[in-house]
Amino acid sequence: MKTVRIRRKALEDFCARVFTCYGVAEEDARAAARVLVAADVRGIGSHGVGRLWLYVNGLKEARMIPAAKPRTVQETDISLVVDADFSLGQPVSYRTMERVISKAEEKGAAFACVHNSNHFGIAGYYAMMALPHDMIGLAMSNTAALGVPTFGSRVMFGTNPLAFAAPADREGAFVLDMATTAVTRGKVELHRRLGKKLPTGWAVQANGREAVEPEALLEALLLRSGGGLLPLGGAGESHGGHKGYGLAVMVDILCSLLCGAPFGPGLADSKNTAARMNHFFGAVKISLFRDPAGFRADMDRMLKDLRSTPPVAGTERVYFAGLKEREKEQEAIRLGVPVLESVYAELTAIAGQCGLEPPPLE
Amino acid sequence: MKTVRIRRKALEDFCARVFTCYGVAEEDARAAARVLVAADVRGIGSHGVGRLWLYVNGLKEARMIPAAKPRTVQETDISLVVDADFSLGQPVSYRTMERVISKAEEKGAAFACVHNSNHFGIAGYYAMMALPHDMIGLAMSNTAALGVPTFGSRVMFGTNPLAFAAPADREGAFVLDMATTAVTRGKVELHRRLGKKLPTGWAVQANGREAVEPEALLEALLLRSGGGLLPLGGAGESHGGHKGYGLAVMVDILCSLLCGAPFGPGLADSKNTAARMNHFFGAVKISLFRDPAGFRADMDRMLKDLRSTPPVAGTERVYFAGLKEREKEQEAIRLGVPVLESVYAELTAIAGQCGLEPPPLE
Repeated sequence: MKTVRIRRKALEDFCARVFTCYGVAEEDARAAARVLVAADVRGIGSHGVGRLWLYVNGLKEARMIPAAKPRTVQETDISLVVDADFSLGQPVSYRTMERVISKAEEKGAAFACVHNSNHFGIAGYYAMMALPHDMIGLAMSNTAALGVPTFGSRVMFGTNPLAFAAPADREGAFVLDMATTAVTRGKVELHRRLGKKLPTGWAVQANGREAVEPEALLEALLLRSGGGLLPLGGAGESHGGHKGYGLAVMVDILCSLLCGAPFGPGLADSKNTAARMNHFFGAVKISLFRDPAGFRADMDRMLKDLRSTPPVAGTERVYFAGLKEREKEQEAIRLGVPVLESVYAELTAIAGQCGLEPPPLE
Repeated sequence: MKTVRIRRKALEDFCARVFTCYGVAEEDARAAARVLVAADVRGIGSHGVGRLWLYVNGLKEARMIPAAKPRTVQETDISLVVDADFSLGQPVSYRTMERVISKAEEKGAAFACVHNSNHFGIAGYYAMMALPHDMIGLAMSNTAALGVPTFGSRVMFGTNPLAFAAPADREGAFVLDMATTAVTRGKVELHRRLGKKLPTGWAVQANGREAVEPEALLEALLLRSGGGLLPLGGAGESHGGHKGYGLAVMVDILCSLLCGAPFGPGLADSKNTAARMNHFFGAVKISLFRDPAGFRADMDRMLKDLRSTPPVAGTERVYFAGLKEREKEQEAIRLGVPVLESVYAELTAIAGQCGLEPPPLE
């Protein structure tokens, strides 16, 4: 698949203009664009501007409400519950994480639960907002139910991503940002596009056999006719599938049950856009425990040790969470943000609908 | 393997007497015994009284120091750093979690990092201490390095367990308590005992091939001659092995780097007992976010839905994290705590060394 390159600023400006074209306020549009483009910058194309259509559809269908007024429904020194009023997920998440960080600056730690929200992009973005403040950052979201419990034949939870970020110095940062299912639906869609069968351990059919046909699985997920994605660790308990299942439920508890929001199979995508979702955010000051400079120095030592682990025969390198993304980011700053030609065609079509020029190529 | 049954109280009393026989103070001995026996009660025999020898050896070798004086090295309203002074892991962990809960009662949330500690038993025990207080509980520990990073050929982190507990009403509670490697060393030892080969996806050799011989793997782990246990998600990235790797490192960061303690391969078992370890604890009040009764009612609904998921063909039931353990606990209360005959023989030998009677059989 061929890619074009676009300057980050130009891509952000373009996305922000599209959001304002659909009625989103200027500042919210900029926040949403920043988070969206950050995914492409960090090499996570599955969550980047290739999903702009999903937000455009969401705004058109009023599943995402451009003039929404998120409000705080409960607040303490160290906590927030925010009703997002069905706004775009990114602006409300960005602002909530800012407030969490400012509370943590004051009190040492803070947490927030956000409900009635929408798709918020990459969880890692919000967790990373804590890094310059010498804090550990946490961000989670539930999603439409696509995952089956261990031994179960029905979808009961989402791909429920979980992000954890901790600062380092020379090594940048440790940034874990992971779906709690073995793979996401995006990986299945990619296999369909490439005409490939699914490997063992990704998904099951209603009858308990492994799902190998991407088309049939995607259809079953849309219709909820049985079967679904397996949790991290795969089928059964022998390789820890029950652990991935547990992590997915943990994310659902923190994002939805703490807010009193719909959970599990209560979250469903429509044919044209994504389910309404709920999020959880946290920030914890490192200085509660020790001098942050000492912590960052130890982090450098640990992360360097990890990436210096001798690789097994036949592999090139050992990474740590966030290293690949950091290298992609450096490349994107140098060469421009990579965007698939097919995605660029989509952006051009969206531009036309809004009477905009598509973003200029590098 | 045949089991005998012993009353919980009798087994706790016996273990406590063994600890005091090796110089542990009465109250600490009782705390250690409670945590140890709780593992057998909940059906987690791998972490129960079958490991009493490990603590006895630790105390004999002075890796665990019976007269240790744990002290608080940093403290705020919502945080603690505790130097365990190389004490037994359980009493210091129990007391620290009590203090975390009491700080959270006051301030809404609290966290602790404990270093210079030893094996603390089941992580879930401490996370569950939060439940009667309508709090979410967290507990983690690092362990001797036994796990290889994705694509790596050397052990760089432990099996690093992570526990998360949230209260329900009729359904009891959701209690996730999981190693972040695909399996623990205990599972490999069990395969050796049964003369079985290891399945794909549990461990690798230094050359990158899968480890199938339990004996050779255990030897390699002891000598650190290359290879080790795979992270949750298995080898490579195709099934999410990099996620399990990330979770293991996250646990190491919270347990060791926040305290300034040794981490990763800096933690090693001796031939006769376990490595010195570090822990992380947390408690968060549900009332920060909503009425706890409403939360528990929603938890009941979610957990009931999960365990009522229709199972795939050829399986019996769907569980949720903590359900099997709760059922085992009810059985142990009714019938006595199950202990393997071979473990009972060990207890009898230990009893002899201390001039004690072994615990009476049910």
